[in-house]
Amino acid sequence: MAHLFIGEVLTHGGTAVDATAGNGYDTLFLTRQVGPAGRVYAFDVQEQALLKTRKLLEEHSLAWQVTLFQAGHEEMDRLVCGPVDAVLYNLGYLPGASHELITQPETTIASLRAAIGLLSRGGRIGLVGYPGHPGGEAECNAVIQFASCLDHALYSVIKISMVNRAGNAPVVILIEEGSR
Amino acid sequence: MAHLFIGEVLTHGGTAVDATAGNGYDTLFLTRQVGPAGRVYAFDVQEQALLKTRKLLEEHSLAWQVTLFQAGHEEMDRLVCGPVDAVLYNLGYLPGASHELITQPETTIASLRAAIGLLSRGGRIGLVGYPGHPGGEAECNAVIQFASCLDHALYSVIKISMVNRAGNAPVVILIEEGSR
Repeated sequence: MAHLFIGEVLTHGGTAVDATAGNGYDTLFLTRQVGPAGRVYAFDVQEQALLKTRKLLEEHSLAWQVTLFQAGHEEMDRLVCGPVDAVLYNLGYLPGASHELITQPETTIASLRAAIGLLSRGGRIGLVGYPGHPGGEAECNAVIQFASCLDHALYSVIKISMVNRAGNAPVVILIEEGSR
Repeated sequence: MAHLFIGEVLTHGGTAVDATAGNGYDTLFLTRQVGPAGRVYAFDVQEQALLKTRKLLEEHSLAWQVTLFQAGHEEMDRLVCGPVDAVLYNLGYLPGASHELITQPETTIASLRAAIGLLSRGGRIGLVGYPGHPGGEAECNAVIQFASCLDHALYSVIKISMVNRAGNAPVVILIEEGSR
């Protein structure tokens, strides 16, 4: 659903940020969306994640379209020249790596503030959170709390929850600059 | 979002049901999706709604693709020959008509059961509910309760809520036949 939502506004020539490069699948999706005339910026604090992301992009001959930053996503307003059409977050830990190194509520909220500041008119943010791992629920609650307080005259915010799953199922938050 | 979700699986030659024809906009959307080789069935208990729907379809020269039933949507399993790829619901009252005539929890749940029975493999149901009018909240709660109890091994169910709006903002329930 996050890809569907982002794909609607992120077209050829657009600019996008993958806040959490991880294994690179979201970066690949964004890069395909913007095409050769577009630009993608991807963040991760772990070198291992950026190496995997670069490898995946190289396999698809798309690495030249992407700028990789080994930095926290909360630094995106310092490192990315806006406006950007879309920002994607996939919170939690790097699949296959240590579960101790996880995204944190403070930096995630700081990053969301930065992302909102970079967003173009009609731009969108898609975020997937995971309440199932230690610390994950607190982070998801912080994101929902932050998103709930965004002025509805300026931002449309929706939450997607899987109602026939256990309470620790992933949650998706989608933010659009502009009201409906 | 309901249209995005339905549009992913409802393609040319498909079969769809508009459970609540209303002013016909959902019927028009479904009819465009299935194209000339597809078929759409639309239900409404109010003649006024079906007349408006037919007029809208005629303006787009698409009326011949649609079967209109002046009947409750809970009768769809008796009147529609399945399988169907998509079913859309827009609950509440007919815009511009009496607010006293509203969809009811009992028939809406019976209709959802019928819709699930008609659904093809991978088929989808999209429902928009309105907690804001008298009786609306009880109906939305009944739908969420029903959807929460669907076996997650057989159905994917998501709820979309507008988290930075008042509690009476519309709610969207999306059901897919098949687990993820």
